[in-house]
Amino acid sequence: MTARFARRLDGMRASEIRELLKITQQPEVISFAGGLPAPELFPIAELKIVAAEVLDREGPRALQYSTTEGEPGLRETIARRMNSQLGTAVRAEEILVTSGSQQGLDLTGKVFLDDDDEVLCESPTYLGAINAFRAYRPRFVEVATDDDGMVPEELERSVAGCRHPKLLYVVPNFQNPSGRTWSLARRQAVLEAAARHGLVVVEDDPYGQLCYEGTTPPALASLARGGPVIYLGTFSKIFCPGMRVGWLAAPREIYEKYALVKQGADLHTSTLAQCQILAYLERFDIDASIARIREVYRRRRDAMLRALETEFPPGVTWTRPRGGLFLWATLPEGVNARDALVRALERDVAFVPGGSFFPNGGHENTMRLNFSIMPEERITEGIRRLGGVLRELCAAPAGTTGPA
Amino acid sequence: MTARFARRLDGMRASEIRELLKITQQPEVISFAGGLPAPELFPIAELKIVAAEVLDREGPRALQYSTTEGEPGLRETIARRMNSQLGTAVRAEEILVTSGSQQGLDLTGKVFLDDDDEVLCESPTYLGAINAFRAYRPRFVEVATDDDGMVPEELERSVAGCRHPKLLYVVPNFQNPSGRTWSLARRQAVLEAAARHGLVVVEDDPYGQLCYEGTTPPALASLARGGPVIYLGTFSKIFCPGMRVGWLAAPREIYEKYALVKQGADLHTSTLAQCQILAYLERFDIDASIARIREVYRRRRDAMLRALETEFPPGVTWTRPRGGLFLWATLPEGVNARDALVRALERDVAFVPGGSFFPNGGHENTMRLNFSIMPEERITEGIRRLGGVLRELCAAPAGTTGPA
Repeated sequence: MTARFARRLDGMRASEIRELLKITQQPEVISFAGGLPAPELFPIAELKIVAAEVLDREGPRALQYSTTEGEPGLRETIARRMNSQLGTAVRAEEILVTSGSQQGLDLTGKVFLDDDDEVLCESPTYLGAINAFRAYRPRFVEVATDDDGMVPEELERSVAGCRHPKLLYVVPNFQNPSGRTWSLARRQAVLEAAARHGLVVVEDDPYGQLCYEGTTPPALASLARGGPVIYLGTFSKIFCPGMRVGWLAAPREIYEKYALVKQGADLHTSTLAQCQILAYLERFDIDASIARIREVYRRRRDAMLRALETEFPPGVTWTRPRGGLFLWATLPEGVNARDALVRALERDVAFVPGGSFFPNGGHENTMRLNFSIMPEERITEGIRRLGGVLRELCAAPAGTTGPA
Repeated sequence: MTARFARRLDGMRASEIRELLKITQQPEVISFAGGLPAPELFPIAELKIVAAEVLDREGPRALQYSTTEGEPGLRETIARRMNSQLGTAVRAEEILVTSGSQQGLDLTGKVFLDDDDEVLCESPTYLGAINAFRAYRPRFVEVATDDDGMVPEELERSVAGCRHPKLLYVVPNFQNPSGRTWSLARRQAVLEAAARHGLVVVEDDPYGQLCYEGTTPPALASLARGGPVIYLGTFSKIFCPGMRVGWLAAPREIYEKYALVKQGADLHTSTLAQCQILAYLERFDIDASIARIREVYRRRRDAMLRALETEFPPGVTWTRPRGGLFLWATLPEGVNARDALVRALERDVAFVPGGSFFPNGGHENTMRLNFSIMPEERITEGIRRLGGVLRELCAAPAGTTGPA
């Protein structure tokens, strides 16, 4: 017999990035493909200390089932950090510990989306959010976004074309994939429009603390007026991703629905991981550790920007991110980044073609470049090789490459 | 504004057990309510050793993102253990590591269930499965089940009344909540009927290794003929639940769909937890540890059965489980277990009224009693107090208590 699957699977496909990552794990590959934090910066020695401490001090409790909402002490600490760093006014009772912020996205889809509800998002937007939401069969409406962030007039126009506009999903800081950061004025204008149209704003903020120039603008969750903002945070980029611990902050009425669906999804996030992270936050200075991460990533970003200037051919443009892990390059019209990837992989260089980040397709002449995982000299060498590929493709007669 | 939630939330409610557990965490309460393994049996010293070893040996990798499918070494080990203990013939490529087997249930709903599809299940059935599946808006069809397991003729009759029968969800070993175990003949007959009707069988087996008398009958996954069986396993009851690591085994065509929805749900299960469990399995003898767990739980079950004989009033019946964590008591018709719970809590005794385990309601004269978490003398004392409550209720004039 053939199993009959749910209709929601029809539109779903595996993340191109994760499939690509399997190929690019050979050590000789210079990978700009993943979104991996640099493992040499993980606080391994500190974690070894707290792992032993937690088991000694509260082993039976740390290994037992716990509440769906999360460890009370960790929720307190997260709320306090958010309020001091982001200017929010969240209470511990509004923090739900999640199994990474990817789970925050999945729960968001589950709490809010019926078939054909509209999710408004930046264009391009985070691929993991597309994949999470797709399971709930929404329509994606991409809102034009420029170097200052989502364009409020375009949001108005997009909402006007919607039948059931429900969520506004955004990554305002050092966005994945574009590296762009929204200005304060855009944050205010978009929030105002969202409230007017009854949209629930989902602010995904994995990179806000990874700022390499100036300061990160205020979080939407701190500016909200009138409409609800769900804030998604994670320890993946400031601590380590392998433990899968993130959180969300939501107004209480909405929070209860999240807790309900989280209970059905996995009962609760690892008690042990939560106890270890809390012990780490209490015993060590995570902000000093984040400062070290910022310094390393800033140098890597600078190395990539320098190499791009000299190696990429005329006609290719790119963003200059002030933080985060990614920059975004646009090739001349008609040059296909998937063709470039095939040739790049032959030279042991990997990146992600940008088309995947547009839920409604197109934009095959774009690419996402990660600068957090490779040391500077490999970034320089990888961009040199990639520049060679692009020079070949950009020089090819028109028509030999085209949109897939 | 009021947020508009997805329609799927209409039918969902918080698990009565988890709400109850919050009340019963005071140390003076004798709790038969949860399904908690005994924390004094957690391998804390061993875990401390492997936690340090994993960080020393492979810290950067263990704290990094990893593949959705799970750590290759752990998948190999799980497949090998299943094949040697259950007589299955699964390959490592068919094992998906999940964030507890609760996630296996959620992913199952996501992969298979459209609105109004039918899920056939035992009556009563596991509450966590009801909650996980409910998010996908199926119809639950309870199939009559006796002390030998699901009744094949009743399954035939139930399927005949279905429009879109999709899943057959079962817990054949030491079931939660009833403590019942299916006979081999029933396993064969039900599998045969399921294959004939094109049902996907979901075999949830958290307790199979906790057998206190005789041997656990063969797994459905080892007997399957013609139709697919998805097997759900977990380390929660044989290692510890706080790390949230379980797995599922599925035929490859179905497996790929599970991996796809798992990717959107949480990317992957904690790399660190997987590495630690694998290191534990390689370095220590988990079967010796499981033997110790069995010995302690067997004595606790015996203590509960002895106390029930002397303390529970005539007219109350109960199951005599050969393994697992639970037994199931049935009060005389018209006596409501929720009334008993109110009076029991006044005497610092907790249990779960059985009505929650029937997705379509009713059966308010039933109760689930856990025997794994309390030491023997507290079991004896708790059953003594509970017997007092039941004697009062059973003696009350008819009509003073009734179905809620």
